[in-house]
Amino acid sequence: MALLGTSKYAQGIGLSGVNPDLASERQTASFSVEGLTTLLDGGAEHTRVRRAVVEVIERDPVFSRENQYFQTQNERYEAAVRKAVHLQKKMHEMGWREDGPEFIYIYRAVAGDVAFLLHRVFMRSISVLGSDEQVAKWIPLATKHQLIGSYAQTELGHGTYLQGLETTAVFDTTTQEFILNTPKISAMKWWPGDMGRSATHTVVFAQLYVRGKCYGVHPFIVQIRSLQDHSLCPGITAGDIGPKMNFEHIDNGYLMLQNVRIPRENMLNKFCEVQPDGTYIRRGSQKINYFTMTTVRVSLLSDEVILPLMKACTIAIRYSAVRRQSKLNPGEEEAKILDYQTQQEKLLPQLAAAYAFHFVNNYLHKLFDRGYKEIQERNFNSLPELHASSSGFKAMLSQYCTAGVEICLRACGGHGYSLLSGLPSLYTKIVASCIYEGENTILLLQTARFLVKCFAAASAGQPVPQSVTYLAAVKPGKCPAKNKLDFLNPDIYVEAYQHTAIRLLSSTAAKLQDLIQSGVKKHEAWNQCTVQLVQAAKAHCHYITVKNFVETVEKLENKAGIQKIMKHLCDLFALHGIFSNAGLFLHDGYISGAQMDMITASYLDLLGVIRKDAVPLVDAFDFTDKSLNSALGSYDGNIYQRLYEWAQKSPTNQQV
Amino acid sequence: MALLGTSKYAQGIGLSGVNPDLASERQTASFSVEGLTTLLDGGAEHTRVRRAVVEVIERDPVFSRENQYFQTQNERYEAAVRKAVHLQKKMHEMGWREDGPEFIYIYRAVAGDVAFLLHRVFMRSISVLGSDEQVAKWIPLATKHQLIGSYAQTELGHGTYLQGLETTAVFDTTTQEFILNTPKISAMKWWPGDMGRSATHTVVFAQLYVRGKCYGVHPFIVQIRSLQDHSLCPGITAGDIGPKMNFEHIDNGYLMLQNVRIPRENMLNKFCEVQPDGTYIRRGSQKINYFTMTTVRVSLLSDEVILPLMKACTIAIRYSAVRRQSKLNPGEEEAKILDYQTQQEKLLPQLAAAYAFHFVNNYLHKLFDRGYKEIQERNFNSLPELHASSSGFKAMLSQYCTAGVEICLRACGGHGYSLLSGLPSLYTKIVASCIYEGENTILLLQTARFLVKCFAAASAGQPVPQSVTYLAAVKPGKCPAKNKLDFLNPDIYVEAYQHTAIRLLSSTAAKLQDLIQSGVKKHEAWNQCTVQLVQAAKAHCHYITVKNFVETVEKLENKAGIQKIMKHLCDLFALHGIFSNAGLFLHDGYISGAQMDMITASYLDLLGVIRKDAVPLVDAFDFTDKSLNSALGSYDGNIYQRLYEWAQKSPTNQQV
Repeated sequence: MALLGTSKYAQGIGLSGVNPDLASERQTASFSVEGLTTLLDGGAEHTRVRRAVVEVIERDPVFSRENQYFQTQNERYEAAVRKAVHLQKKMHEMGWREDGPEFIYIYRAVAGDVAFLLHRVFMRSISVLGSDEQVAKWIPLATKHQLIGSYAQTELGHGTYLQGLETTAVFDTTTQEFILNTPKISAMKWWPGDMGRSATHTVVFAQLYVRGKCYGVHPFIVQIRSLQDHSLCPGITAGDIGPKMNFEHIDNGYLMLQNVRIPRENMLNKFCEVQPDGTYIRRGSQKINYFTMTTVRVSLLSDEVILPLMKACTIAIRYSAVRRQSKLNPGEEEAKILDYQTQQEKLLPQLAAAYAFHFVNNYLHKLFDRGYKEIQERNFNSLPELHASSSGFKAMLSQYCTAGVEICLRACGGHGYSLLSGLPSLYTKIVASCIYEGENTILLLQTARFLVKCFAAASAGQPVPQSVTYLAAVKPGKCPAKNKLDFLNPDIYVEAYQHTAIRLLSSTAAKLQDLIQSGVKKHEAWNQCTVQLVQAAKAHCHYITVKNFVETVEKLENKAGIQKIMKHLCDLFALHGIFSNAGLFLHDGYISGAQMDMITASYLDLLGVIRKDAVPLVDAFDFTDKSLNSALGSYDGNIYQRLYEWAQKSPTNQQV
Repeated sequence: MALLGTSKYAQGIGLSGVNPDLASERQTASFSVEGLTTLLDGGAEHTRVRRAVVEVIERDPVFSRENQYFQTQNERYEAAVRKAVHLQKKMHEMGWREDGPEFIYIYRAVAGDVAFLLHRVFMRSISVLGSDEQVAKWIPLATKHQLIGSYAQTELGHGTYLQGLETTAVFDTTTQEFILNTPKISAMKWWPGDMGRSATHTVVFAQLYVRGKCYGVHPFIVQIRSLQDHSLCPGITAGDIGPKMNFEHIDNGYLMLQNVRIPRENMLNKFCEVQPDGTYIRRGSQKINYFTMTTVRVSLLSDEVILPLMKACTIAIRYSAVRRQSKLNPGEEEAKILDYQTQQEKLLPQLAAAYAFHFVNNYLHKLFDRGYKEIQERNFNSLPELHASSSGFKAMLSQYCTAGVEICLRACGGHGYSLLSGLPSLYTKIVASCIYEGENTILLLQTARFLVKCFAAASAGQPVPQSVTYLAAVKPGKCPAKNKLDFLNPDIYVEAYQHTAIRLLSSTAAKLQDLIQSGVKKHEAWNQCTVQLVQAAKAHCHYITVKNFVETVEKLENKAGIQKIMKHLCDLFALHGIFSNAGLFLHDGYISGAQMDMITASYLDLLGVIRKDAVPLVDAFDFTDKSLNSALGSYDGNIYQRLYEWAQKSPTNQQV
């Protein structure tokens, strides 16, 4: 590090003071930042617990992500394993329990860089799909970490279409065992996390065969590595699937099975069982499985989808308040790039979306809590709505947030492209959320299928779930707005979103009907409508998000200016959506060209309004510098010093 | 590698035969693939030379990219240096010269993974900006590689706004030297390629001061490392800026200067000179510099922007013809995912765009060749048009192609997310093209400024450059199309694009005028219109691209079915653009809602038509397997075997 020795800047980079360009942004906040943080957390007690957890985790050097951007895949994997083990100790030491108030903040504070997450999925599937005996046998072992679990569902050849899985489990009556095989290369398990190098056990999904008859896909507990020396068990071939766009810390793996025998008791048999004589019995309802998959999609939204967008906004907006480039007016000093309309137009709609999605996430959680209660009372009526909601919102939010993170990255120019900005890794990670837990297009089509059914029911005057009752309210007509201020009236824009969602759905449903009546086979007709069905499903989710944002704002008291700024963000989110999807609203003349000009004017005006509070609005997300891990996004705004300091740590500079 | 030993698949993965699902796609091609390849290359002789170069490069193990996805930053840097040195030998051995027909194919064949590219920029700037004596002194040294050059323009604090650079060069009359300094941290040179570890010399751009007076930014040749032991020269601090989203093979660097003295002769002085007594002289025209920057933007489009999209399309479309998932019709076998309308709607517009951009790139090169001839005859009239075109098309194409590559990546699901697919590195590299050589928003606003001027001139009946004469042709009216087939008439859609481009420009120009007349200061008024000005600039480039595609198709003979399939692609590109930007076309009623339904119907019909030729259309790009470096995109379509084989090579599997 001879470089620093000769540098007069070495002393100058004390990162104590806040950059005046950032400090000035905070002096003019129109609302209480702490108040908004508390609102986002759901109360002051939650904020206190969250900060306490974050502090404990960040104070512990084992959880440091300081060198993350310089590490190889292997170094990141080893660090993740170390963190996973240490985290167990830490939780014990701190008295944090899985059902305690701290739990939801722990993984967020560790920022995802921890191994053995699939161990919990392994445990959850046994808890849900296993009999009481199976739960009694496996859960204590797993809880005490006497094994490391994984979850082997996806195969090389099959992801979304689970019925097509090719791994086989043949029941051998003579030995009372299942014989598991990977009959061809496409049947190889591929992608399961923690399986490439770590797991000792896994839940394998395989086609069950008894006496030559196939009973479909079932889950089996299979040991894959020795509990003594961690070597692969007989008949098992497993390894790492190689480098990915991100998730270097996870050993996503492959698994091949050759005549692997497991006892009959290893088929998870709460809902179906193979009896000793080979009789296959199905019992109870499998609908609850369906619900488990559904809840996972909703539970990932907060940490994996919305939080990354909040972080990206924080980094890009703070940077844009510090970065000065070119002159807005000749003779003046160079302007903050956040003062350029084009920069505002990139970043502020993302900020509004982050808030919109935070609130719609709360709405989804309420919907699911209510649904869960009903299900416990053996009422499964809400399942289709819950499934459609979780599918549609997972798809819409992951797609929107991924695009938003990319916009933030590019809005920071060259410095955004440096890993040290933190933005590239946010992007390469969040983009996976468009694919995992259901590919987005497939999910939107599931939502669309639900909507088409509900639309038919509503049109026939039959009752439909609460979130789609609006489908019965088809009103032709035109938007009544007369000037640009009218478009700051939520009634006006909520109505426009509703109208457009209904129009897209009804016209596509009509097309589908026409095709079928003209003799096209049902499945083929469906395929020919899918591009438009996807549009309709998105429009539905967009409508619900806008409506929910409006309702959230209405319920706020205007304490410390929070309601006012939230109203601005809500307006911006809504008008940005109309501006960006203008064709959908203009199509049938519900919005006229002249009205679209009013919307554009109001939308651009709002950018200037929200720009004044942009920094306080990201400060309210309350991310620590360590959690952002960004040379551009730190609270003090000392971007250039930090970029320079961090670059020194690069291994390429250690070899000079 | 004990894993493979136990596997019965090890023998089975002979990659000899072509996957029947891919073979069948090639049997039904409606046109001659070889004919289309020849057309893309610009003639059979070009195809022959290109293939010969590719073969030589790919046969040489030094240029292998086989392990690229497993290498660390340092390994990639060292490989790139090795390749750069070896490439010089190879060129000498093969008799390939910089002015020979092979040259344009060499770097494409090496696939960018080569160091010292900035050496050529160093040479070019000396050739263009240096006096005859400077050229005579430095160019032979550089040509013989007795030094390694770089180009130090960008600073930590300044990228796009070059006038704001803060590095200083103060002339000392007593010693006849310039004293170079980095006065503050934001003045540090940051990003220059080949500078972190490799370069011995660089061209530093600094503010020239003579006797306390600043003369603006000038270029200076500065030695930064010893030619003996490669240690840093006195007063120099330099190193690597650390990891980036891609370009691991390039040592982008930082540079600080502390009282670094260079002789007066090291200021590049073709256009301006500081005489021994300190007199500053400016001579000749600097416009030619401007032209050099402009040509760089056009020259990068082919290899850095269009080719990556072509590669991504090749990978994703071949994969989609082999990957089967779920059933299109119950009872049938699982369908190729390329048969789903939603998959077609993701990929085929990208394919059409790749062709559209290839042709518009040809158009730009013709425009520039003509401009260059005029400039050699001291006629600089075409410079504004060339600058506006290079800016607008660089921005539009890089943005479109980046989005296209991302769509291809996501369309391959989980496997697309594996580095082994080749798609992540295509994405992480092409996204940089939205930022370098001019950030896209800044560039579009330069185009917009040109268009606003031309529109005013055209409206006043004054002559305007050829590419914007259409701005004088403002015709109100409606689109005359009566049914969906009318929208396959190029006159109809070209007119629609033209109308929309004019409308966006004229309405924004009117807004700008209104603001200024209402008393808003000119620069502030401009800022308030920039979101719409960006839209107008994009619409102009989109219009020119569609028009050029139509004209290209018209000029083709219908040899071997090529004109027919190109017409389909042209239609698809045009209608996809209208479908995706419906609001712009519906806004003033030029296209009605009913007509938009016709466009949608024609657009969706075209997907089904082009789907039949999708594989032959990517085969025509004629990428070798080695150049794609993708487990999913190989010519033989053996995707699963290749993923498995390649995963074995991962270092994480070597450590078991």
